[in-house]
Amino acid sequence: MAFSVAVAGASGYAGGELLRLLAEHPEFEIRTVTGHSSAGRPLIESQPHLRSLAGLTLQETTPEVLDGHDIVFFALPHGASGELTAQLRNVRLAVDCGADHRLRDAADWEAFYGGEHHEAWSYGVPELLVRAADGGVTRQREALVGADRIAAPGCNASTVALSLAPGIAAGVIEPGDLVSVLAVGPSGAGKAAKTHLLGAELMGTANPYAVGGTHRHIPEIIQSLRAAGAAAAPTLSFTPVLVPMSRGILATTTARIVPGTPAARVREAWESAYADEPFVHVLPEGVFPRTADTIGANTCLMGLAIDEAAGRVVIVAALDNLAKGTAGAAIQSANIALGLPETTGLSVNGVAP
Amino acid sequence: MAFSVAVAGASGYAGGELLRLLAEHPEFEIRTVTGHSSAGRPLIESQPHLRSLAGLTLQETTPEVLDGHDIVFFALPHGASGELTAQLRNVRLAVDCGADHRLRDAADWEAFYGGEHHEAWSYGVPELLVRAADGGVTRQREALVGADRIAAPGCNASTVALSLAPGIAAGVIEPGDLVSVLAVGPSGAGKAAKTHLLGAELMGTANPYAVGGTHRHIPEIIQSLRAAGAAAAPTLSFTPVLVPMSRGILATTTARIVPGTPAARVREAWESAYADEPFVHVLPEGVFPRTADTIGANTCLMGLAIDEAAGRVVIVAALDNLAKGTAGAAIQSANIALGLPETTGLSVNGVAP
Amino acid sequence: MAFSVAVAGASGYAGGELLRLLAEHPEFEIRTVTGHSSAGRPLIESQPHLRSLAGLTLQETTPEVLDGHDIVFFALPHGASGELTAQLRNVRLAVDCGADHRLRDAADWEAFYGGEHHEAWSYGVPELLVRAADGGVTRQREALVGADRIAAPGCNASTVALSLAPGIAAGVIEPGDLVSVLAVGPSGAGKAAKTHLLGAELMGTANPYAVGGTHRHIPEIIQSLRAAGAAAAPTLSFTPVLVPMSRGILATTTARIVPGTPAARVREAWESAYADEPFVHVLPEGVFPRTADTIGANTCLMGLAIDEAAGRVVIVAALDNLAKGTAGAAIQSANIALGLPETTGLSVNGVAP
Amino acid sequence: MAFSVAVAGASGYAGGELLRLLAEHPEFEIRTVTGHSSAGRPLIESQPHLRSLAGLTLQETTPEVLDGHDIVFFALPHGASGELTAQLRNVRLAVDCGADHRLRDAADWEAFYGGEHHEAWSYGVPELLVRAADGGVTRQREALVGADRIAAPGCNASTVALSLAPGIAAGVIEPGDLVSVLAVGPSGAGKAAKTHLLGAELMGTANPYAVGGTHRHIPEIIQSLRAAGAAAAPTLSFTPVLVPMSRGILATTTARIVPGTPAARVREAWESAYADEPFVHVLPEGVFPRTADTIGANTCLMGLAIDEAAGRVVIVAALDNLAKGTAGAAIQSANIALGLPETTGLSVNGVAP
Repeated sequence: MAFSVAVAGASGYAGGELLRLLAEHPEFEIRTVTGHSSAGRPLIESQPHLRSLAGLTLQETTPEVLDGHDIVFFALPHGASGELTAQLRNVRLAVDCGADHRLRDAADWEAFYGGEHHEAWSYGVPELLVRAADGGVTRQREALVGADRIAAPGCNASTVALSLAPGIAAGVIEPGDLVSVLAVGPSGAGKAAKTHLLGAELMGTANPYAVGGTHRHIPEIIQSLRAAGAAAAPTLSFTPVLVPMSRGILATTTARIVPGTPAARVREAWESAYADEPFVHVLPEGVFPRTADTIGANTCLMGLAIDEAAGRVVIVAALDNLAKGTAGAAIQSANIALGLPETTGLSVNGVAP
Repeated sequence: MAFSVAVAGASGYAGGELLRLLAEHPEFEIRTVTGHSSAGRPLIESQPHLRSLAGLTLQETTPEVLDGHDIVFFALPHGASGELTAQLRNVRLAVDCGADHRLRDAADWEAFYGGEHHEAWSYGVPELLVRAADGGVTRQREALVGADRIAAPGCNASTVALSLAPGIAAGVIEPGDLVSVLAVGPSGAGKAAKTHLLGAELMGTANPYAVGGTHRHIPEIIQSLRAAGAAAAPTLSFTPVLVPMSRGILATTTARIVPGTPAARVREAWESAYADEPFVHVLPEGVFPRTADTIGANTCLMGLAIDEAAGRVVIVAALDNLAKGTAGAAIQSANIALGLPETTGLSVNGVAP
Repeated sequence: MAFSVAVAGASGYAGGELLRLLAEHPEFEIRTVTGHSSAGRPLIESQPHLRSLAGLTLQETTPEVLDGHDIVFFALPHGASGELTAQLRNVRLAVDCGADHRLRDAADWEAFYGGEHHEAWSYGVPELLVRAADGGVTRQREALVGADRIAAPGCNASTVALSLAPGIAAGVIEPGDLVSVLAVGPSGAGKAAKTHLLGAELMGTANPYAVGGTHRHIPEIIQSLRAAGAAAAPTLSFTPVLVPMSRGILATTTARIVPGTPAARVREAWESAYADEPFVHVLPEGVFPRTADTIGANTCLMGLAIDEAAGRVVIVAALDNLAKGTAGAAIQSANIALGLPETTGLSVNGVAP
Repeated sequence: MAFSVAVAGASGYAGGELLRLLAEHPEFEIRTVTGHSSAGRPLIESQPHLRSLAGLTLQETTPEVLDGHDIVFFALPHGASGELTAQLRNVRLAVDCGADHRLRDAADWEAFYGGEHHEAWSYGVPELLVRAADGGVTRQREALVGADRIAAPGCNASTVALSLAPGIAAGVIEPGDLVSVLAVGPSGAGKAAKTHLLGAELMGTANPYAVGGTHRHIPEIIQSLRAAGAAAAPTLSFTPVLVPMSRGILATTTARIVPGTPAARVREAWESAYADEPFVHVLPEGVFPRTADTIGANTCLMGLAIDEAAGRVVIVAALDNLAKGTAGAAIQSANIALGLPETTGLSVNGVAP
């Protein structure tokens, strides 16, 4: 028997990707979709690529409309879900793709988002290494089993956290002096019309933004690295660059190798961390990922190089910001929470070229 | 009276950009263009955008054809110009856009290129700061005055060297642990047909290459940073990423700030270094460049942010790899060598959007 | 029990898309993949996006390797499959994605391809209207039921034939003076390295090719329009334009409306032709398709406008050249031939944005 | 002595291109720039690529600010310039890049734009053939000599009119059943933030618009074809398709050849029409233009094919919508009006790749 599902914020990019994946999911049944300015209109007007859902109509985004579904996915602007989710009485599982329930520290929320801080929910990156109180290493997956509230990750945040956690947990890289530069597509910025996101502004050019430590995903990454057992406070220089592709994140992240660590041991930290993961793949030596290989898939591909002259390891990670970066992570986490096989309804194969 | 000019390798991308700029230059007269497999064919077949040069025919690339011009620009594959330039008897100024005459250290050449090492020529990045023997700071421009042999820079190399030299020369950043990640367009890779450079392989995706310290521009950058007065041996993690734009380099470079340096002094190092430069512009605080703003121009735009939490300065630099990165730098340097006003025939305005 | 499948030419773009779709197909089991220069290498090197098939190795493309599978899909260069398919002894169904078995008329083959003509196989566009000998209208689907040899269509050809067949079959448009201009992505041109297909040649520009009636898909379209019952010999002006997107065809096709035909009757011809089709959708009045909405899907979307001032109907059709244009059509046709539900393993939803 | 120049609407795309070209023009001196919401701000904030104009500040767009300049260029939204230009008392030459003064027929204006109709000004496409009252053929250039009011053309309109006028004027093509399909970049749609012009909506996809005879440039084209001497009322099916490039128009236009006309005579009509034109070039047989070859240039490139099977000539024309399509045409026309050499300040060379 399928779980009944509602998607709040179904007219945007994250909502569209949730629906695309949910439509193929054998255990979930999309029952309700809601919008804001497009409420009352057919979904197909906002999401003309979702032909199989042409019969759905967008409803208002209210607690009354959403309550009573087995699962509700939220794909709302940051700050919009916190109050709304608090009013749900009868929802077995709520998954928030916005930022409202990601940060544990109210000061971080205040500094990077502002407004009221909401409690952190179980963080939806199952593959993240977590250092347990007893010193052992577990995975974030364990915190998701049986969860009823899940915070899907920021797309850039999960890409960088997955890139660094193995080295942090294994103690082979230093938590200070981390640097990450990301090539990102503009779909992550959403569908609201803004001049700097116009096609004419983005095609044929690379445009940096949030330079110098102001991006909202930074505290989220630091939080994950702390959970992975960073011995000291991590410091991260983080710069995203918009490039002319609709989807995709390619994060190039480097960290100083702890002096004296053999190259093989560095590589081993990543390979062993993800050896059994269905959706995070470490590529063979000398091979690096392209975002194209992950489009539409729930896959994060990772390549590793050790630069002995620079004393740093370089981790290049690629994923689809809307799929594994947002909607795929949400569904994968929901599968775990509900006791379904984790890979249900999710593909590892990208659409390329 | 105009200088007579020949361009060797006129059918490729760098050759085409040289010709586009030379065609607008009031003191240079394009007399001869040469090709390889396209010798004997009209230039317009290889460079259909150069309508004003539709009357030219490509000749063979031989010393006999090139000798006797006032100026010869070389836009040949790496390794091809060394032997050829050695045979020129009667050329007032030779400018090599290939790598053959860039590196002073034969060991660097051997390690990153291989084959015979040729002597280094005057390096064609006039704005680079150079630490003199007496401890004073000059600019590379001085070495170009009256030069008869010039090595135009690697496009990535000059972008990163210009990004870092002010901080190195002023002693406000540490020369170790430098990190640079570049979004680059594929025109820098040349016009030879290769599968990984096909449009279908590059559109809609970000593709890293030469990850882990193997890119040939690394020793060229290190050489420039040493010349700028690096107190210790610089170490640089350098990763280029191909993104879907024909032209352009956006280099995001970060360096650790020397502890205790006030933020204002850091910024001041860059602003004073380039305050009087016609072609390198430091943007106001909070403003960062886009590659679009430099397309077709001889301009390098630079934005600076100080990330106090990370203890690093972030320098984002944009330029057009074919223009300021290659052909523009060659012509600017030639202007200096010949005693012409440095900006002759070069525009600071990009073609955008 | 699943059908055993081999894919010949698995290292190219069409082969990759066949594999991507086959990997999700519940009734097909990929047993063998073959390549040419890449034979002996792991498939994942050529198709790094097909993570679920990472265990496969490319074999030689020989009759011995291919024979004995229930189904063999051919994704070879034009001219390569004809001789090879003739040597298969024990293959229940062969589907050729190349051109070798598409054209019924040897003179057409000679004029547009050259070399030996091979017999035409059942044409793999199930939705195409076909005028029967008794004057009734059937669909190409009927010719595919139980077929053992299928010729998948040319991607441009099927897009234009599907655009025009309803009007031709209903007698509401004139078969002369047809005009079609297509915006196409370069993946249709294959993965062989050619200078004019380089990323730097294609990004930021629209490049026409095969202008003036020379494109090889023209006779294929004419053949389909004749089959749809064109009263007179169709004439078609056909111009493809390469635009900067990896995948996708947007065909804008116009035809003169038979004088006196009411607008509603024109529209009705298309709506009734495709009303029950799972994969060809006529959009509501005033709505037109984007290629984005079809990426990765087996869908052809079609919008119709009647331009009374010009006396012409305009049909805009979008599909993914690799999916519905090639690999999806092949699998859809194979489903029909084998008695499976026609939509098995095929999605109507595109990956957008 | 230079002419003093003001540009109204300097913060948009057309305004930016006017400024880019004016900055290189030896006879024009940019004295005033005006904006709307950005009035009071430095120009460089809106046009970060125009480094040489970094000292200018945007003023209010009022008659007081504009009056008194030798030349005023208007780059305002359609409908905004009509009233404003009527209030200028002391301006030697006004050039309107908006539509307000293009159409002679008030009914056309009413049908396609609405609102008050303003008188038509001299149309700024100097190369257009015009059938004189005595039956002879002149060029639109003659109407521009000494003009004090000029309407710069619509970018799509001039591309298609230039494509067809030679055949119309020579009587070798039929004026009925003209078909034109255009691949266009989004910069022509302006800089106002609209959802359907977002980068994520435009990258990787071809999006048609104004399908079925509704585009506002249609009456402008018909007006030009009538002026060229169309024997009967022209009918034109016109479909623009947005493709992923910032700039550029590639118009594929076809017309029925008058039966019995020899192919050589068809080609001759175009070649003789543009033989002496500095900015409209007919390419050799078998060669077709790419938009890349015209970027930033004032060039319109045209390739011709005769499709005997279809009985149609195909004209493929490429230009840069912002340059030759708008700002370049405006400056070229101003040069003529003021008695300057027509090519002053305009380049024929594009920026490619």
